[in-house]
Amino acid sequence: MEKRVYNFNPGPAALPLPVLERIQREMLNFRGTGMSILEMSHRSKEFEAVLNDAIARIKRLLKLDDRFYVLFLQGGASLQFCMVPMNLEVPGKPLDYIDTGTWASKAIKEAEIQKKPVMVIASSKDKEYTYIPKKFDINLDASYLHITSNNTIRGTQWKSFPDSKGLPLVADMSSDIFSRPFDPNPFGLIYAGVQKNAGPAGVTLVIIRKDMLERVPANLPTMLKYTTFADKNSLYNTPPCFAIYVVDLVMEWLEEEIGGIEKMAAINELKAKMVYECIDEYEIYRGTAVPEDRSLMNVTFRLATEDLEKAFLSKAAEKGLVGLKGHRSVGGCRASIYNAVSLEAVEALVDFMKAFAKSH
Amino acid sequence: MEKRVYNFNPGPAALPLPVLERIQREMLNFRGTGMSILEMSHRSKEFEAVLNDAIARIKRLLKLDDRFYVLFLQGGASLQFCMVPMNLEVPGKPLDYIDTGTWASKAIKEAEIQKKPVMVIASSKDKEYTYIPKKFDINLDASYLHITSNNTIRGTQWKSFPDSKGLPLVADMSSDIFSRPFDPNPFGLIYAGVQKNAGPAGVTLVIIRKDMLERVPANLPTMLKYTTFADKNSLYNTPPCFAIYVVDLVMEWLEEEIGGIEKMAAINELKAKMVYECIDEYEIYRGTAVPEDRSLMNVTFRLATEDLEKAFLSKAAEKGLVGLKGHRSVGGCRASIYNAVSLEAVEALVDFMKAFAKSH
Repeated sequence: MEKRVYNFNPGPAALPLPVLERIQREMLNFRGTGMSILEMSHRSKEFEAVLNDAIARIKRLLKLDDRFYVLFLQGGASLQFCMVPMNLEVPGKPLDYIDTGTWASKAIKEAEIQKKPVMVIASSKDKEYTYIPKKFDINLDASYLHITSNNTIRGTQWKSFPDSKGLPLVADMSSDIFSRPFDPNPFGLIYAGVQKNAGPAGVTLVIIRKDMLERVPANLPTMLKYTTFADKNSLYNTPPCFAIYVVDLVMEWLEEEIGGIEKMAAINELKAKMVYECIDEYEIYRGTAVPEDRSLMNVTFRLATEDLEKAFLSKAAEKGLVGLKGHRSVGGCRASIYNAVSLEAVEALVDFMKAFAKSH
Repeated sequence: MEKRVYNFNPGPAALPLPVLERIQREMLNFRGTGMSILEMSHRSKEFEAVLNDAIARIKRLLKLDDRFYVLFLQGGASLQFCMVPMNLEVPGKPLDYIDTGTWASKAIKEAEIQKKPVMVIASSKDKEYTYIPKKFDINLDASYLHITSNNTIRGTQWKSFPDSKGLPLVADMSSDIFSRPFDPNPFGLIYAGVQKNAGPAGVTLVIIRKDMLERVPANLPTMLKYTTFADKNSLYNTPPCFAIYVVDLVMEWLEEEIGGIEKMAAINELKAKMVYECIDEYEIYRGTAVPEDRSLMNVTFRLATEDLEKAFLSKAAEKGLVGLKGHRSVGGCRASIYNAVSLEAVEALVDFMKAFAKSH
């Protein structure tokens, strides 16, 4: 095996090495079954045990009580953008959204395509999504309030979730779920493509509160109804078994190696602090998000010129630090430091950033 | 590694051992990148090479010219049941369907849920779907004619595809695509969950002819439009990268190890012949499909009593022959002998069946 790199990809992203090693070990013969997990029936007792273990771990980690269903869907957060309004609109009641960047905007667009009564109650578009809106008036009769917990592209993050005054909160948590503790009770629905903090691309986690299921219209296509997945424990049709298996392993790592979400959050805070301190200390770097809303997951920054950014990225790659390019829509640099990016990787990044600053 | 079993699962199903070994070898460091394929950006040049190699191989194997797009979606054939009518209906023109069993019936149901003008022009429901209808009148002004090429549950298969009189044929080929050559030209759209003949669960192959894309209504949700996937080479959002990678490896195996679809078809015919001859020779077994429509992929049969079937399945499992139970909706026995089920596995099955017959 050649040397592995330090992976700062924005998603799909780094996975814990012990998880990858376990997948490798079990690939030809899954736990004594004589076949690969890739060849196994989704209705076998062995796969159901994996599925149910993943659900149980997610419920323990996020402190979800039995009002919450943990479901596994496909199609990414992008499919949820259309399923959320399709399933959760209460007829006659507006849909409140807060626009904090590209992904929030896409969620809004998919509700609008369906001609739903969308109300964008706040937006940070006026300053290129470099902050999280602080003041807004919620429609108290809205169907729900939709937010995007972390903006991977601009590097902003809700530090605490808005008081939704009893309305169900709906959140796209694709890029920060499992990175910090939060109170799940105000949430009617949480969704997350797992390929940043919880697994490989190919499965979407949906956490839905029981009362939300009563809103699902009867006449939707079967695969677009949350009730289909809730009624059948995500086994209405063949689920993405392998991706669910990897999620289970990542959750096991988070519980048993890391010690849970509080411990993970402390490590994540330390990692982010190291990178932001470096950015603030050296004039060559300029953070793009307002300090109080800086994301602990995606650290976005610029250098003085695009040429300097190119030199930074190319020197970093030489040192085995990859995935540091900013999103193609905004340019610049970005270090995605999700759960599985180790303290060691972040130390290597900061050492490099310091050396680069001193030599330029 | 403990001994691997002979796997006759109906799907997810057996994969070629060299493919599994390659996945295992590459798991920690994908082709010198220093990261796993599970950790790699879907916008990296390495992943795009995998995606484009899979597409090129599929086009070569199925002899698809440049009018055909090869797309990778999620949600299984079950999501296609609703996407097909949503995208391909020509307003005012009926949708013709032929009902050959559970999966065809589900496709029909999802069109009806959308209140589309469905016409079921033929059905084999009268005889419990044990045959393929031979006589039917196609609506010459229909939007399309939908068929299900192979019925995994009842073990029937279209031996040649119906003459659709110039209407676009639409086929669910989940359980027999890549198993035999066919003329793609009459097809407007082909879809297949890959977890039987082409990969692991988690990706759906969609082959769509260019002229069908003109039918896609502009106001559909983005993730439910075929044009979204065709316009972006299946990279509108994060695709199920790992499943696509495994499909690429299976296609490589089919082209380079087996030697293409004609050679695969000859092996498949031989495998099926061996099992069916055994069923016909020993009175203890009774094939459930009419002989002329017997599936080369799923061999369905009964024994005299359910107790005898239980004994058969349990003795088979002792010999390392697994996955032989019939679908829970119909009972009995079923040997799924997809592409990756080796001649050796089928020989072991037939030897066992003969020995069981002689001792009972």
